[in-house]
Amino acid sequence: MTNLLEDTICAISTAPGVGGIAVIRVSGKQATECVGQCWEGASIASMASHTAHLGRITDSDGSILDEVVLTIFRGPRSFTGEDVIEIACHGSTWIQQQIINTLIKCGCRQAEGGEFTRRAFSNGRMDLSQAEAVADLIASSSRASHRIALNQMRGAFSRELSALREKLLEFVSLIELELDFTEEDVEFADRTKLLDLASHIKDTVDSLANSFSMGNAIKNGIPCAIVGETNAGKSTLLNHLLRDDRALVSDIHGTTRDVIEDTITIGGTLFRFIDTAGIRETDDTIESMGIERTFKKLNEAQLVLWVIDANSDQDKIQELSERILEDTADKSLIAIINKIDTLSEEKRHEAESFLQKIIGTRGTVACISAKNNLGLDSLEQMLVKQAALPETGDTNQVIVTNARHYGALLHASEAITRTINGLSIGISGDFVSQDIRECMHYLGEITGEISTNEILGTIFSRFCIGK
Amino acid sequence: MTNLLEDTICAISTAPGVGGIAVIRVSGKQATECVGQCWEGASIASMASHTAHLGRITDSDGSILDEVVLTIFRGPRSFTGEDVIEIACHGSTWIQQQIINTLIKCGCRQAEGGEFTRRAFSNGRMDLSQAEAVADLIASSSRASHRIALNQMRGAFSRELSALREKLLEFVSLIELELDFTEEDVEFADRTKLLDLASHIKDTVDSLANSFSMGNAIKNGIPCAIVGETNAGKSTLLNHLLRDDRALVSDIHGTTRDVIEDTITIGGTLFRFIDTAGIRETDDTIESMGIERTFKKLNEAQLVLWVIDANSDQDKIQELSERILEDTADKSLIAIINKIDTLSEEKRHEAESFLQKIIGTRGTVACISAKNNLGLDSLEQMLVKQAALPETGDTNQVIVTNARHYGALLHASEAITRTINGLSIGISGDFVSQDIRECMHYLGEITGEISTNEILGTIFSRFCIGK
Repeated sequence: MTNLLEDTICAISTAPGVGGIAVIRVSGKQATECVGQCWEGASIASMASHTAHLGRITDSDGSILDEVVLTIFRGPRSFTGEDVIEIACHGSTWIQQQIINTLIKCGCRQAEGGEFTRRAFSNGRMDLSQAEAVADLIASSSRASHRIALNQMRGAFSRELSALREKLLEFVSLIELELDFTEEDVEFADRTKLLDLASHIKDTVDSLANSFSMGNAIKNGIPCAIVGETNAGKSTLLNHLLRDDRALVSDIHGTTRDVIEDTITIGGTLFRFIDTAGIRETDDTIESMGIERTFKKLNEAQLVLWVIDANSDQDKIQELSERILEDTADKSLIAIINKIDTLSEEKRHEAESFLQKIIGTRGTVACISAKNNLGLDSLEQMLVKQAALPETGDTNQVIVTNARHYGALLHASEAITRTINGLSIGISGDFVSQDIRECMHYLGEITGEISTNEILGTIFSRFCIGK
Repeated sequence: MTNLLEDTICAISTAPGVGGIAVIRVSGKQATECVGQCWEGASIASMASHTAHLGRITDSDGSILDEVVLTIFRGPRSFTGEDVIEIACHGSTWIQQQIINTLIKCGCRQAEGGEFTRRAFSNGRMDLSQAEAVADLIASSSRASHRIALNQMRGAFSRELSALREKLLEFVSLIELELDFTEEDVEFADRTKLLDLASHIKDTVDSLANSFSMGNAIKNGIPCAIVGETNAGKSTLLNHLLRDDRALVSDIHGTTRDVIEDTITIGGTLFRFIDTAGIRETDDTIESMGIERTFKKLNEAQLVLWVIDANSDQDKIQELSERILEDTADKSLIAIINKIDTLSEEKRHEAESFLQKIIGTRGTVACISAKNNLGLDSLEQMLVKQAALPETGDTNQVIVTNARHYGALLHASEAITRTINGLSIGISGDFVSQDIRECMHYLGEITGEISTNEILGTIFSRFCIGK
């Protein structure tokens, strides 16, 4: 580990592919020396920190690879806390790769995924939950997930956790003080007050843990299942919503056999649309497996879009509605009448009120023509409204989006629950203290005060190279 | 035009997509004021040029969009010659887009493709051929194309052209001086010497123009046609060469009907592989159209890979060889015996010498199994050797890769040829002078000394946004 931190690392930090420019980042004790070997320009050693310089990167045979701008950030005033050099080169993938090859020849090592951020953590520039937020921030694709990640990176979650740990420490100190005086049978800690405090901590931990299902939806998209009979136009609708030709569309009933999932941000909210096999009686084994999966997928959804062909038989709709309403009892429902352009004005109103009667207060009705792009804008507005998440603009609101944090919070909750139970039945102080210490341990795992190389390895390996 | 240059422009300059970081570039007179409106950090106005600063970009409602590093390059010491501000933000596409939106709200305009480089040209930071080389440099995907583009960007081509123009100017000045003394019938310019000079200039212009076919191959890839009977394994070979599943592969004869083209760099050389429909007698109309195109594509190729099934009948090979050898008379040929693993050692040698006898000195024979990845490395080495381009390491060697330059050189060559012919038959000085001026005009078009908004628009619209 120590040796690993001694290395000077390099990586392409910008998105892969061709761009106007690309940025290559070098970090480590030897950054100046390594880059100096392939640099033609002002002396790097005598550059002031946070200054940019035009010059050239040369190949090992001395030929010029590219004209670049080099910016130097001297440690500890840098992202990693070490000397960092950023090289902005022309954005051809060939040039980017050649510069990396040259830097490796000059003594750098190709950075592993997340290694720059891991160094920032190791050098005390941020705690673990902040480091993890960097990855979330980069992956964020909606206003809400961006806000949460930025909040977390700027330390809101860390502050919340450190407040909890402080209270627990106070708590456990009093109890452990009693243990020093066991023979005297004193109680420094007022058990009623302790119980109140423990309950308060449990509430906070639980509320953080509970925010995870919302946080997860924000991060990975609100799951919306698209269901309905075969050939109702589900795939055409999906393609419109995704602005893409993701799903195979044809006039043949039962074209979609597989479950297709993809995400898109609408009105600042990330949705995960799940297209499903159309529902109908079928002898095709593969297709009927698909239909079974349709009803399974309904369970995972938070929002159900039921697509109905405007020309469907009313009895058939009635029949299907029973199963759909039953299977979606706890979900928001939008009934979508598709191919609405094939109906007269009168018939259209009739269909709309017929459906509204069927679904009652369980949801709303939308009229569209997916093929002719009618009514889709108002459908999208409906989606955003139905999915309405609590405003995350409040910078004090902490929402857990990370499964590792969620796991640690559940463990912490268990430990504090045991503490409460123990206090209620009056078990001895050393057991209570042990439970509290366990709770503190799990909270410390989130911020990285408690960590192992293995945990760190798992966390940072999920980062992209160059960050 | 003047107004356009007054605008302050912004664009994402790094490759599209998610990366560790992304760089947004702002250029123009109002760069400091525009960015200042959404910047939380040290005062931009008081920053020294070429310095980097940590701070935050805020939304119009004052909420923080991202923590960023801002680098300022004050004009004229910048890429565009104007004030340039570069914002390095976290590389989520959502953040990148939000920062662009915010900058637009603060008075910037989204830059058009190549607009930064166009400004560099307009502000005299580079000539037109250098500006065009910036785009080529970004697109370069092989050692050779990179060297040529870098050379051109650093001014080698411009120097060559300005040397030519200088000679022409000397030439035309002497002739035009004579025109002032027409009544006296003097000859300041020694006609024999002029003829020598004109011939020398024509040689240089022609040699530059001739370098275009090589330059074009370097830039767009050396065209290699893959031909052979149906089911010989052409598509499997193509997929291996491209490290990809580009072509549809099956055991069915005649799977490939279309001509498939794609490029890949092997050993520093860019190849453009052209897979063709297999040759066989067929009643299928679409397929026979494909076969006709196969023979047409042979004309475009510089290198022909003839793929032969190791188990083919010798008479059939002999028969096919006649047409292939005839159609590829001026090309390099590699005969590839595929599925070699199905033959015994003895049979393999037999097949190899049989084929070598057929193609004689016209090419070489390679034995492979595309399916089992046998012999492909040595085939690739063979390709690189056959395609061997003249070393472009010589920094003085100018190779034309740009079709616009090629066109201008052809026009210049015509004009100088007319000059030579005119001098030979002794036409009057004013006609000679006109031809020379025309030659100079075309050379000036290359460097941009002669340019129109229309020409500039066409050139820079091919650039990527952000450069």
